[in-house]
Amino acid sequence: MKVIILMGSKSDLEIMKKASAVLDEFEVPYEMKVISAHRTPDLMFDFAKNAKNNGIDVIIAGAGGAAHVPGMIAAITPVPVIGVPIWSKDFNGTDALLSIVQMPSGIPVATVGIDRAANAALLAIRMLAMNNSELYQKLLDYQEKMKEKVVNTTL
Amino acid sequence: MKVIILMGSKSDLEIMKKASAVLDEFEVPYEMKVISAHRTPDLMFDFAKNAKNNGIDVIIAGAGGAAHVPGMIAAITPVPVIGVPIWSKDFNGTDALLSIVQMPSGIPVATVGIDRAANAALLAIRMLAMNNSELYQKLLDYQEKMKEKVVNTTL
Amino acid sequence: MKVIILMGSKSDLEIMKKASAVLDEFEVPYEMKVISAHRTPDLMFDFAKNAKNNGIDVIIAGAGGAAHVPGMIAAITPVPVIGVPIWSKDFNGTDALLSIVQMPSGIPVATVGIDRAANAALLAIRMLAMNNSELYQKLLDYQEKMKEKVVNTTL
Amino acid sequence: MKVIILMGSKSDLEIMKKASAVLDEFEVPYEMKVISAHRTPDLMFDFAKNAKNNGIDVIIAGAGGAAHVPGMIAAITPVPVIGVPIWSKDFNGTDALLSIVQMPSGIPVATVGIDRAANAALLAIRMLAMNNSELYQKLLDYQEKMKEKVVNTTL
Amino acid sequence: MKVIILMGSKSDLEIMKKASAVLDEFEVPYEMKVISAHRTPDLMFDFAKNAKNNGIDVIIAGAGGAAHVPGMIAAITPVPVIGVPIWSKDFNGTDALLSIVQMPSGIPVATVGIDRAANAALLAIRMLAMNNSELYQKLLDYQEKMKEKVVNTTL
Amino acid sequence: MKVIILMGSKSDLEIMKKASAVLDEFEVPYEMKVISAHRTPDLMFDFAKNAKNNGIDVIIAGAGGAAHVPGMIAAITPVPVIGVPIWSKDFNGTDALLSIVQMPSGIPVATVGIDRAANAALLAIRMLAMNNSELYQKLLDYQEKMKEKVVNTTL
Amino acid sequence: MKVIILMGSKSDLEIMKKASAVLDEFEVPYEMKVISAHRTPDLMFDFAKNAKNNGIDVIIAGAGGAAHVPGMIAAITPVPVIGVPIWSKDFNGTDALLSIVQMPSGIPVATVGIDRAANAALLAIRMLAMNNSELYQKLLDYQEKMKEKVVNTTL
Amino acid sequence: MKVIILMGSKSDLEIMKKASAVLDEFEVPYEMKVISAHRTPDLMFDFAKNAKNNGIDVIIAGAGGAAHVPGMIAAITPVPVIGVPIWSKDFNGTDALLSIVQMPSGIPVATVGIDRAANAALLAIRMLAMNNSELYQKLLDYQEKMKEKVVNTTL
Repeated sequence: MKVIILMGSKSDLEIMKKASAVLDEFEVPYEMKVISAHRTPDLMFDFAKNAKNNGIDVIIAGAGGAAHVPGMIAAITPVPVIGVPIWSKDFNGTDALLSIVQMPSGIPVATVGIDRAANAALLAIRMLAMNNSELYQKLLDYQEKMKEKVVNTTL
Repeated sequence: MKVIILMGSKSDLEIMKKASAVLDEFEVPYEMKVISAHRTPDLMFDFAKNAKNNGIDVIIAGAGGAAHVPGMIAAITPVPVIGVPIWSKDFNGTDALLSIVQMPSGIPVATVGIDRAANAALLAIRMLAMNNSELYQKLLDYQEKMKEKVVNTTL
Repeated sequence: MKVIILMGSKSDLEIMKKASAVLDEFEVPYEMKVISAHRTPDLMFDFAKNAKNNGIDVIIAGAGGAAHVPGMIAAITPVPVIGVPIWSKDFNGTDALLSIVQMPSGIPVATVGIDRAANAALLAIRMLAMNNSELYQKLLDYQEKMKEKVVNTTL
Repeated sequence: MKVIILMGSKSDLEIMKKASAVLDEFEVPYEMKVISAHRTPDLMFDFAKNAKNNGIDVIIAGAGGAAHVPGMIAAITPVPVIGVPIWSKDFNGTDALLSIVQMPSGIPVATVGIDRAANAALLAIRMLAMNNSELYQKLLDYQEKMKEKVVNTTL
Repeated sequence: MKVIILMGSKSDLEIMKKASAVLDEFEVPYEMKVISAHRTPDLMFDFAKNAKNNGIDVIIAGAGGAAHVPGMIAAITPVPVIGVPIWSKDFNGTDALLSIVQMPSGIPVATVGIDRAANAALLAIRMLAMNNSELYQKLLDYQEKMKEKVVNTTL
Repeated sequence: MKVIILMGSKSDLEIMKKASAVLDEFEVPYEMKVISAHRTPDLMFDFAKNAKNNGIDVIIAGAGGAAHVPGMIAAITPVPVIGVPIWSKDFNGTDALLSIVQMPSGIPVATVGIDRAANAALLAIRMLAMNNSELYQKLLDYQEKMKEKVVNTTL
Repeated sequence: MKVIILMGSKSDLEIMKKASAVLDEFEVPYEMKVISAHRTPDLMFDFAKNAKNNGIDVIIAGAGGAAHVPGMIAAITPVPVIGVPIWSKDFNGTDALLSIVQMPSGIPVATVGIDRAANAALLAIRMLAMNNSELYQKLLDYQEKMKEKVVNTTL
Repeated sequence: MKVIILMGSKSDLEIMKKASAVLDEFEVPYEMKVISAHRTPDLMFDFAKNAKNNGIDVIIAGAGGAAHVPGMIAAITPVPVIGVPIWSKDFNGTDALLSIVQMPSGIPVATVGIDRAANAALLAIRMLAMNNSELYQKLLDYQEKMKEKVVNTTL
C-alpha cells in the first residue's frame, strides 16, 4: 500500500502537507516528491511509466497555473491520479482547476477543490479502503470524530 | 464488484449513458438509478447509508445546477464518490462544477470535467483495478487502443 | 415566532452575527446553531424534519464553498429557508452563491448577497411581518432611520 | 392573500408563467403586471408605495440585464420581494443575478436561480404557508408528489 | 455649467474624490452628494426629476454591489449620467459594472472602469467641452501634460 | 451637429444599425464608417486627429474581441467617444467590454452594454441635448413613449 | 524553413485549417499532424525531442479543454511553440486558454486568441520573417491588403 | 540582435524587470522604454513604424487593464510582438489578458501568462535562437539548469 504525493515546486509544500498530515493520521505509507511537468518532463515520464511496477497505488499531484502534471501522469499510467489545484492570485485557482478537471474523454483525473490537499488524501484512503476493512473502519471513525467536533462547538 | 451510476433526473440520462457504455466495454457490473438530493432526500440518505452493505464499491453521481447529490452521499458513506457536473445554459456547468468540487475539508468528491461521464467510469475502473490485475490489463489495452486510433487518423 | 440561524462551522460566526444583531434590534427571538451538511448529515436531517414541529418559522443558513446546507434543508422541510453565501478566497464566494441559488425547480432557497447575513435577517423579518403589524411598523421605522442616516451624512 | 408577479417587459412572460402556473396549482390568488424600473419609474414607485395598502403579501419580480426592479421595489416597500434573474446571451444571466442578489445591507431581495420563476412562486407559498396550515399541507403534498415522480422514473 | 457627483454612501468618498480633483483642476463647478437608490429612493427620485431645472448638466454616480443609482437616475431624467462601478471584494467590482452597464435599450448610462472616477470627470468635461472652446483647449493641454509625463519618465 | 458611427468591420453593421435607427428617429445627422484599429491604424489616427476640425461632436465606436478602437480614438481626440462592446461566442462579449471600459486614468470611454448600440445613440443625443432644447424635448417625448408602450402592454 | 501544425484530434481540423490556409498563402512549407498529449504521450515526447533535428522552426499546436500539448512540447524542446485554444461549449474556450497561457516561469507558450489559428500562422511567419526579407515583404503586402479591404467596404 | 521591452507606465517596471533579468542572463541586448498607447499615441505610432528600420527584432510589451499597446504595435509593424498582461485587483488581470490575446484575425500578438514577463523574454530568445545556434545552446542549458534545480530540491 503506497501513496505518492507530488508537487510541481517546493512552494506547494505548505498546501500539500495537508495531504501528508491526513495520511499520517490514517497510518498510510506515502512518499513526497517534487516533479514538474514542465521543468522535468523526462522525470515525470519515467515516474509515471514505472508507477505501477514501483508498487504505487494512488498518485496525488498538486499543481497551480497551467497545471499539467496530474493529467499527463494519468495519460501515461492507469494508476488513479488525484489532482489538487493550487490557488494563485492570477485567477484564484481557476486556471489550475480547469487545467486539471477538464481532461478529454479517456483520461480521468479525480479532481478535488482548490488547495483541498486533505481531501485528496481522504479520497486516496477511500480508494485504498475499498479492499481494506481496517482502513474503512478508520474512515467511519474519522467521520464520527468530525461529527463530534461539530456537535461540541459552543457559540 | 459493483458500480452505481446515479443521476438527479432522467434528463441526465443521455450524458450518464457515456458512463454505462464504458463500464459495459470493460464488463464491469453496474446499476443506474435516479436519486435526487432535493426531491428524494430520504431515499438518498437510505441509499448512501446502505451503500457499503449493499456491496457497492464506487458511486458515480451526475448532477447539474446546485449539484448536491455527490457531496451529500460522500458525507454519509466512505465509499468513493465520483461527481459528474452536468452542463446547462445558465452557467455552462460552472454552477455544477463548483457545487461538486469545492467540498469542505473532510469529505472528498472525485470530480471529473463537465459532462465527462465516460471519465467517471474510467476513474471507477482505475479504482477497481487497484486490486484486479485483469481490469488493470484492460486499462492498458484501452490506452493502447486510444493511441492507435490517434496514430491511424488521416487528415 | 422563532428564527433559526445555522452555520456550517464556527468560522462563519463573525458573518452570521450580523443576522443575530438585526434580529436583536427587532426583538425577534432566534437561536444560533452549528449544523454541517457534510460533517453532520444526520443532525441536519433531524433538524429539518422537525423544524415545523419545533415551532420554527424561518431558517437562515450561512455556508461557504460547496454550500449544500440551505438547499438540503429546503428539500426536507417546507419552512422558508434563507441562504447566505459566505465569501472565501477561492472564488470570492461565487462557489457558495451558485451552490445556494441554483436550486432545481421545486425547492426554493431565498438567497441573499455574499456575506449579507444582515439582509437575511431583514428578509426573515419581512416574512414574519406579513402577519405582524407591529413588526411591519418596525420595518417602516428601520427604513426611515436608514434614510435619515444618509440625509445626515456630511461629506 | 395576494401575490403579484411583475416583469420588465412582455418578453419575460414565457419565463414568468412558470410562476403563475405554480400559484394556479396551489390556488393562490395573484396578478401579473408589466412594470419597468427604467421605462416606467413613476409607476414602479406608485406600485411599491401602495403595495401593502393594496393587500399585497408577496411580490415576485423577474428582470434581466441590469435588473433593478426587484431591488428598487424592496427599497420602497417592506413587503417581501422575490427576484428572478432572467437569462440572456450576454452574460448567461450573471448580470441579472448580480444586479438582484448583491443588494446593500438594509434592503433584502430573496433571490432564486436563473429563470427559476417556479421556485419564486414556491418561495412565496412557503411564506404564505407560515400562517396558513392548509397551504402548508399542500406544500407537503407537493414534496410528496415530486418524490413519487422520481421514484417512478424508469430508465 | 454644473456637474453633480453622487455616491451611495460616504464609504465611496475616497474613490469619488478622484472625480472632484479632476473637476477642480479644470475649474468646473460641481457639487457632491450622498444619495442612495435603496436607502433614500424618494430623494433620488426628487433629485432626478429636478436635475434639469436645477441647472445640472452632467451627473456622475458611483455605486458598488447591486449598483442601481446610475441607471435609475438615467431612467428619470434625460440629463447624461456617468456611472462609476465601485470595487468590492465580493466580485472585484463585476457586480457593480454589470449592474451599471447592462442597461436595457432606451436608457443609457455612460459607464467607466472600476473605480475610474477620474475618467468619469474627464468624460463629463468632454461633454461640456462640446460647446465650450476654453474647456476643449484645457483638454488638449491635459493630454499634452500626460504625454510629457510619460516622455520624461526615467527607468 | 454631427455624430459618427464607426465599426471595425462590416460584420458589426447589423448591431450598429440600431444606433443609426435611433439617430434617424431623432433626426440627428450622422455618418457610418468602417475603421479598424488593427487593419487600418493610419486611417484611425487620421480620423481621430481631424475629428474636431471636421465638425464631429460625438463618436460612437462598436468593436468586438480585443476592442481597441474606442480607447485609441479617445486617446487621440478629446471629442467624447462612446464604446459599444460587440458580442461574440468566445467570451459572450466580456473581452470587448473589458477592452473598452477598463481604460487607464486620463482617457475616458463612455461604455454601454453588450450590443447596446441604440443606447450609444441615445447617450450621444443626451450629450447633444445639453445645449439643444429641441433635442431635449424629444428625449422627454421618447421617455413618454417608452412608458406608454409599457402601460399599454396586455398580457 | 518548416512549420508544424499539431492538433489533439481530427475534430480540431476545421479550426486548424485556418492556419494552413495562411501558410499556403505565404508559401511557407508546413506539415499537419494529430498528436494528443493524453492519448499519445510517447509520440508527443518523441516528436518534441526530435523537433529541432527534424528541421522544424516553429510549432503551432491547437488544443481544447485541459489543453496540455502546447505547454508540454514547449517543456521538451526550445523550438518556439504557438498555442491555439480551441472553443468548446463547457467554458467557451476559457479552460483551453488558461491551460495554455498560464505556463510557469521558464517555459513560454506564445498564445493566440480562441480559435485564432490564422493568427498562429501569421505569428509563425513573423518569426520566420525575422531573417527572411522576402517573407517580411509579404507581411507588409498582407497588411496593405487588409487595409484595402477595409477601405473598400461599402455600407 | 535587439529586443525592446515596453511598458505603459513606470508602475509596471517591477514586473517587466523579470524580462530584462532573463535577457541579461542570456546576454541578449535590449532596451526598456515607457510608451503608453493612450497617453502617447503618437510616440507609439512612430516607434512601431520605425521598429524594423531601427533594427528591432522582437518587441515585448507589458500592459494592464484595457491593454492596447501590444495589439496596436502589432497592427503597425510586422515585427513579432509579445504581450504581457499585468495583474490588477479589478479583474485579476483578466481584462489585460483578454485585451491582448483576443486580437482579430490578421494581427497576432504572442501572449504569455499574467505577469509572466520572464516567459516573454524566453519566448523572444526562442525566436532569436531560430537562427542562432549559440543562443539555442544556451536555451538547452537553461532547461537543464531548471531540471537540476527541481531534482536537487529537498523537502
